[in-house]
Amino acid sequence: MDSLPNIKTSFPEWYQEVIMQAGLVDTSPTRGCFIIKPYGFAIWENIQRIVDAQIKQEGVENVYFPMLIPEEFLRREEKHIEGFSPEVAIVTHAGGKKLEEPYVIRPTSETIIYEAFARWIKSWRDLPLKINQWTNVIRWEMRTRAFLRTTEFLWQEGHTAHATHEEAKALALAMLEHYRQLAEDYLAIPVVIGEKTPHERFPGADTTYTFEALMQDGKALQMGTSHILAQSFPAAFGVKFQAQDGTLQSPFCTSWAITTRLIGALVMTHGDQNGLIMPPKIAPTQVVIVPISKTPEEKISVIDAAMAVAKQLRAAGIRVVVDTDETKTPGAKFYHWESHGVPVRLELGPKDLVAQQAVLVNRMEEDKTKKKTFIKLAAVVEETATLLNTIQKALFDRAAARRASQWKQADKLSEFASQLDADNGMYQVGWCGGEACELALKEVKGTVRCLVNENKHKTCFNCTSQSDRDILVAKCY
Amino acid sequence: MDSLPNIKTSFPEWYQEVIMQAGLVDTSPTRGCFIIKPYGFAIWENIQRIVDAQIKQEGVENVYFPMLIPEEFLRREEKHIEGFSPEVAIVTHAGGKKLEEPYVIRPTSETIIYEAFARWIKSWRDLPLKINQWTNVIRWEMRTRAFLRTTEFLWQEGHTAHATHEEAKALALAMLEHYRQLAEDYLAIPVVIGEKTPHERFPGADTTYTFEALMQDGKALQMGTSHILAQSFPAAFGVKFQAQDGTLQSPFCTSWAITTRLIGALVMTHGDQNGLIMPPKIAPTQVVIVPISKTPEEKISVIDAAMAVAKQLRAAGIRVVVDTDETKTPGAKFYHWESHGVPVRLELGPKDLVAQQAVLVNRMEEDKTKKKTFIKLAAVVEETATLLNTIQKALFDRAAARRASQWKQADKLSEFASQLDADNGMYQVGWCGGEACELALKEVKGTVRCLVNENKHKTCFNCTSQSDRDILVAKCY
Repeated sequence: MDSLPNIKTSFPEWYQEVIMQAGLVDTSPTRGCFIIKPYGFAIWENIQRIVDAQIKQEGVENVYFPMLIPEEFLRREEKHIEGFSPEVAIVTHAGGKKLEEPYVIRPTSETIIYEAFARWIKSWRDLPLKINQWTNVIRWEMRTRAFLRTTEFLWQEGHTAHATHEEAKALALAMLEHYRQLAEDYLAIPVVIGEKTPHERFPGADTTYTFEALMQDGKALQMGTSHILAQSFPAAFGVKFQAQDGTLQSPFCTSWAITTRLIGALVMTHGDQNGLIMPPKIAPTQVVIVPISKTPEEKISVIDAAMAVAKQLRAAGIRVVVDTDETKTPGAKFYHWESHGVPVRLELGPKDLVAQQAVLVNRMEEDKTKKKTFIKLAAVVEETATLLNTIQKALFDRAAARRASQWKQADKLSEFASQLDADNGMYQVGWCGGEACELALKEVKGTVRCLVNENKHKTCFNCTSQSDRDILVAKCY
Repeated sequence: MDSLPNIKTSFPEWYQEVIMQAGLVDTSPTRGCFIIKPYGFAIWENIQRIVDAQIKQEGVENVYFPMLIPEEFLRREEKHIEGFSPEVAIVTHAGGKKLEEPYVIRPTSETIIYEAFARWIKSWRDLPLKINQWTNVIRWEMRTRAFLRTTEFLWQEGHTAHATHEEAKALALAMLEHYRQLAEDYLAIPVVIGEKTPHERFPGADTTYTFEALMQDGKALQMGTSHILAQSFPAAFGVKFQAQDGTLQSPFCTSWAITTRLIGALVMTHGDQNGLIMPPKIAPTQVVIVPISKTPEEKISVIDAAMAVAKQLRAAGIRVVVDTDETKTPGAKFYHWESHGVPVRLELGPKDLVAQQAVLVNRMEEDKTKKKTFIKLAAVVEETATLLNTIQKALFDRAAARRASQWKQADKLSEFASQLDADNGMYQVGWCGGEACELALKEVKGTVRCLVNENKHKTCFNCTSQSDRDILVAKCY
């Protein structure tokens, strides 16, 4: 297998190759779409398992709405159609005929869901109403990149309706907190939580919260969002309820989503020159055992021992593969599993069996003198579990340290423009709140990632007006 | 709530109403599509959990292929395009432009998957290749009915490639056996397994196996299928591999699927005049506890007791809801949960607490003197678990007995034509193997469900030729 492009100097090329080489995706004949292969999909299944439990914990129930939405629905909310109409795919013919009314393939499902909310919500007794669906969506993007921006992608979209703004806000923030936990506690990716500027909001939302991460190259990635849709959306679809006081009111809604983009975030946060590194909690395979032997007799005994160790590890809830492929050398196996980012490798040879030990190898350790350690077979479960925990924490710490070094304070655009241009990175600055100043960032390919709850900078980065809240500026994916 | 149409005399109307009343589905603004509501989707999630484990047990891995397929792909396999072209939905515009080449929304994914197989399979070492995906598909059906036949539906589609026909057949039959277990052991629906006639095969398949059930009204429902695609399909997409002997060969493929239609099968097999009946193993809620009280003091103690019982049942792995809704009478609650098909109800009142007992109610029991029994609270877990097992078995036995009474032997079309017309039912007859005789069934709205491994009838039902294998004839959904 070819070695990967240099991760420091050719990050985009490194990304494209590492995801192909590790078998996460393949190209497809459909424009801007990729095939998610078994190893990539197994990561998504692990993410789904975590998020589905979080969603159900909030009392949200899964449903399924039709993928085809009458085109006219999109037009009912002005900003929504403005935001999505350039991106939709349109079905004009079906069943051998031209359709009288075309359908769009959902770019998101607010419109068709709110049409149902209008029928389902009559009284305060029907609230809160909390649903979610795991689906595919299509947004016809011009420039696509596997996982990060594709014409079709997979996601979950949660939609809730509440009697009060307070309750809707609490739910939107509760989901954001679940997402933060997913990112930090499972994916080992440190994130910033904050509100989007009006310019960066979801088309039609009143408030958009985001959680943002900084990739190795210093570019930001929007990891997911959570919105409050208080006014125009329910009104556009006639969603109203009779309150306890008898008045007719409009509910306060939320929607929130995470997508297969998170797999791209994992790759771009933790990978190194040898390929992927998977945080143990999300890794489809946490441990690979490589039995090593020269003679047929040795082979039988090391494979037996490897299977016994695998059984012990599985009993402890650890996801293990024993690589008994006879067509590959141990070296080729090491390379294969390193490039796939399996966090821990156990090597077992005849001498190890005599000494009742195994070699424990840490995927992320760069210091060769520390990468391998001998452990007693009697303690294999304990040692392996400890190393998995250590790696999970170390990956987060390493990403957090890198982010800290890339997160800078600045007062004026002129101060950070050239550094942003040359080295990327994230810049915390003051902002007057004006869209004109926000758009000035376009010249340096910067965007406002979010507002933060700090006020270190008292003046706008672009004008002389006062700043009440800092913003984070970065280039983004 | 209104009572349901008569299940004996108005089965189709009963079906339409029971699925709406129980909150399985709702209508949608998209032609031929329904919204799957939380209770309906929870059944699908339970089916998914069972089938996903079966699939993985066969070494099949989950993947995701693009939903949009270049229209030209469908044309590559003659029978496939003939079968599906009248049913596809076509995307002609996207991203604000007319597309140079239109895409069809997958009616099934063989074509786009085989395009990848041609790239992935080079040598015998790449075989077997076994993948599956859980997706939505669209087939523009003329007459739709919720779950049974809808424009969009959810399914899993498995696709495998093997070096030998024997191995492909073994996999196709192994999945069929898993499906049979799903149907009989979980859904409590007795099924017949058999081969389809060439006329009824999946377009482009060499062999189609099916598993068929008979609904309460005596009409058959195809529950799912498993195909061998040996020749034309791999050839149409240039899927070839170098065998161990160095020759270039065409692999033997399989595909197999079950869909959300199985939810309709559950409803039509087990429901009664009071609504749904859910087999315990698939029921989203297996037990509902209804606390009954008159005074505020009583309320506290019965709810406490109900919660304690729920906790015990949950610890035993039983899915329980405690209905503490204060806006409903106990009678309204009984009605609600009966119509939703929850198999077991526990009633707890103040007198029961004094006697340290509860009332255990069996949803499927029609004899009122046997429907309710008093059980000791000390034995509540054991008694409830026993009743759940009893109901699971009794539902299967009841369906099997009904099927036996509707499964008839006949020699000639003239013998059974009028009974098929008037009462539906399934007729086991001889068949010469000729398509002309098969199509003669159209006149009586009959179809061949499958060939069976019996030879009770030595002559064709329609001509004087010899019959080597019996077929089953029925009207179908």
